[in-house]
Amino acid sequence: MASKAPPSRGDDRRGEILKAALSLFNARGTSAISTNHVAAKLGISVGNLYWHFSGKEPIVLALFEEQSRSFDGVWTPPTKASDAADVAVHALHRSFEIAWDYRFFYRELVALARIYPSLRERHATERKRRSGEIRAFQRSFITLGVLRLPDAAASLAPLEDMGWMITSFWLPHVELRDGTLTRRAALVGARMVLSLYMPYATKEYARALSLALERADGEKDVQGSRHE
Amino acid sequence: MASKAPPSRGDDRRGEILKAALSLFNARGTSAISTNHVAAKLGISVGNLYWHFSGKEPIVLALFEEQSRSFDGVWTPPTKASDAADVAVHALHRSFEIAWDYRFFYRELVALARIYPSLRERHATERKRRSGEIRAFQRSFITLGVLRLPDAAASLAPLEDMGWMITSFWLPHVELRDGTLTRRAALVGARMVLSLYMPYATKEYARALSLALERADGEKDVQGSRHE
Repeated sequence: MASKAPPSRGDDRRGEILKAALSLFNARGTSAISTNHVAAKLGISVGNLYWHFSGKEPIVLALFEEQSRSFDGVWTPPTKASDAADVAVHALHRSFEIAWDYRFFYRELVALARIYPSLRERHATERKRRSGEIRAFQRSFITLGVLRLPDAAASLAPLEDMGWMITSFWLPHVELRDGTLTRRAALVGARMVLSLYMPYATKEYARALSLALERADGEKDVQGSRHE
Repeated sequence: MASKAPPSRGDDRRGEILKAALSLFNARGTSAISTNHVAAKLGISVGNLYWHFSGKEPIVLALFEEQSRSFDGVWTPPTKASDAADVAVHALHRSFEIAWDYRFFYRELVALARIYPSLRERHATERKRRSGEIRAFQRSFITLGVLRLPDAAASLAPLEDMGWMITSFWLPHVELRDGTLTRRAALVGARMVLSLYMPYATKEYARALSLALERADGEKDVQGSRHE
């Protein structure tokens, strides 16, 4: 099998455009940012930008695809009860890290879905696909015996729906509540989703979750000081 | 004490403008609606409208005040354990009925708070005030012995925050999930907030909540067929 060719200059430029757009959208919102702003930030002509993207909508959609790919593999179920807490905490932290990286989506999703029907559809298929993964992820904790729900068949779907809702709206909730949004406050969302499951955790699993959360907070602080 | 004077023609007109604006904002979103649209819907001149409101922002703020007043008295704590379930279900249903009535706020709050700093500030003071009421409401269920939290002092604040978040974002969540928003789906939010507390309910209280929810669903269906 031939090895993969290195990215061409065009691929580099495409990536640079997405990176610049993401940073501007996160800082000032999509409605304040035009393709001109993105080109100016990179010091390239608008014509050059248009060679890669025909406007703002395809840039927003490409960023959505990028974000979706970041979720690949996040919901890989644990195989041993002793790994369950670390796997759960890691998956949830990762979800909120991705939300923080693409925070403009979380602030503007309802408005963007209204402006761009293509994004609305893409979001719906993404939700469907990830819900399947998350339901399998949930079930593994029941199978491993660390979660005990009185009626798992009926309770897991609303828990998945609530978890999805918290992941989607935790960032705007924090921003409205605190008047500002920090990476640290964004990551607290992981604790909020976990708290939905805490009442159903065995004693041992609840203790393991608390320890895993403390460890993750330690790592978060180190990364926070690097990235924030 | 003199009886209150009947509303003048000016008060009537002011109320009509707010009603027309609310209906247009709910149907098409604030960014698609100008003061011209509102005046046209009422068959009045824009000059007449401007005599009451100097633009869209004061209309949005007046609707926010109207919505806030709808929440007065909602969080009146139960005084007997036997009333607790009905009071809880009624307060939550009322919250989501108000959310449905003013649904444009719930779809657009993050964007509107960005455009209108006055709304952002007003929302923050409203949150502070209602949180105090909700915390007192929560505590009454502990005092009446129908909720048993392992560490109430530490658990009530996150539960209030989560409940607030669900109330704020349930409607846009449903609309993104289902591609449409109905009154019936909006009111399911009450069940979602209750589900946060269910793991801590005594057996008797959990049973009473289920019955109270069924009764409320019955009433909801009657009202739904009238209003939807």
